[in-house]
Amino acid sequence: MTPANEPGHAAIIDLLGVLAYGELSAFDRMAADARMAPTTALRAALSEMAAREMGHYQKLVTRISQLGCDPQLAMAPFIEAVETFHHRTEPRTWGEALVKAYVGDGLAADFYLEVAQYVDDSTRQLVTEALADSGNAEFAIREVGSLIRSDPTAVSRLSLWARRLVGEAITQAQRVAADRDALTMLIVGGAGDLTGISLLTDRITGRHIERMTAIGLSN
Amino acid sequence: MTPANEPGHAAIIDLLGVLAYGELSAFDRMAADARMAPTTALRAALSEMAAREMGHYQKLVTRISQLGCDPQLAMAPFIEAVETFHHRTEPRTWGEALVKAYVGDGLAADFYLEVAQYVDDSTRQLVTEALADSGNAEFAIREVGSLIRSDPTAVSRLSLWARRLVGEAITQAQRVAADRDALTMLIVGGAGDLTGISLLTDRITGRHIERMTAIGLSN
Repeated sequence: MTPANEPGHAAIIDLLGVLAYGELSAFDRMAADARMAPTTALRAALSEMAAREMGHYQKLVTRISQLGCDPQLAMAPFIEAVETFHHRTEPRTWGEALVKAYVGDGLAADFYLEVAQYVDDSTRQLVTEALADSGNAEFAIREVGSLIRSDPTAVSRLSLWARRLVGEAITQAQRVAADRDALTMLIVGGAGDLTGISLLTDRITGRHIERMTAIGLSN
Repeated sequence: MTPANEPGHAAIIDLLGVLAYGELSAFDRMAADARMAPTTALRAALSEMAAREMGHYQKLVTRISQLGCDPQLAMAPFIEAVETFHHRTEPRTWGEALVKAYVGDGLAADFYLEVAQYVDDSTRQLVTEALADSGNAEFAIREVGSLIRSDPTAVSRLSLWARRLVGEAITQAQRVAADRDALTMLIVGGAGDLTGISLLTDRITGRHIERMTAIGLSN
């Protein structure tokens, strides 16, 4: 029996499942987006960022197996939401690919940090380890900066694009929340109450705005 | 000055350049082919194989930089041959993708092993390290075996496909050999003479045939 104040098994499996499928699809999409790079060096930089996602993926599915679940079954409920997000936010330019990698990596890292507080020690350690390997977005910051300097009209286009990414992420997150009660209760329970959820959203939004400013885009 | 019996700097850079671009494009193609997988687990298995190529790539470009060359310039002469190979061998089914990953990985590993004998100690160590991380084709062997058992007509189709892969690889290797004198001389010089080259080709062909037999395909 799981103590009442600890998230249940189903919720942890849901959490690991959505993170794992998120990593697998981030790999797939970044690998494809890397083809838009203007140079082999930049193509390799985004390809390496993609490859690192598979390291995270491996850790997450190993943990799901340790918990006695089939990783495929754990990921299945989240495939549609994640794929819909990617389908609706397919970059058409290298600049859009860079901003998506940067914004996506940042939002994912923030979400990892927040939920790490709500889970058992082993899961927290895993989530923190997966995160520690992140922070590979420096090249994206540098390259978006250089794009903006060489074409100042890119600022408004890419700022709009970043807003669309966040909008689609929220839409799909709400869809998942509506479908997956255990996962939703883990986060609501962890945050304390609806005020806690609102504060969590504020923290994630605040860090996103900081990242937009750092990269030279408006929010 | 490079002693007469040691391969020159230009040849080593060519060798590292073609290996590096080969890894980068293998990553790209396997990542794309992974989408054809019938299950998320198999998609992840091919994606992980792809991700590992980026580790090799990183080691190779680091070495090119250490030798005082720009990795982009080192790779540039080989892009067309490698891309033409992939363009002409685009898998249309999951079985073709698996056989390509298996055959390609095997041929690349054999080529690494052969050329490692012809280069300086540091380069040899690097090439051997990149190889040590390989051997991730077990899942491909298992999956091709299971495909063949469930559909015996696949044997002739996939055997033909494997022959086409080898044919295209030879075509593109000859094209590179015709263009890159220093690299060609490294391999001819390393092998000793044209008889040596013929023995090298026999060894690589022999190992390929063994791999075809292991996977249940005819040569």
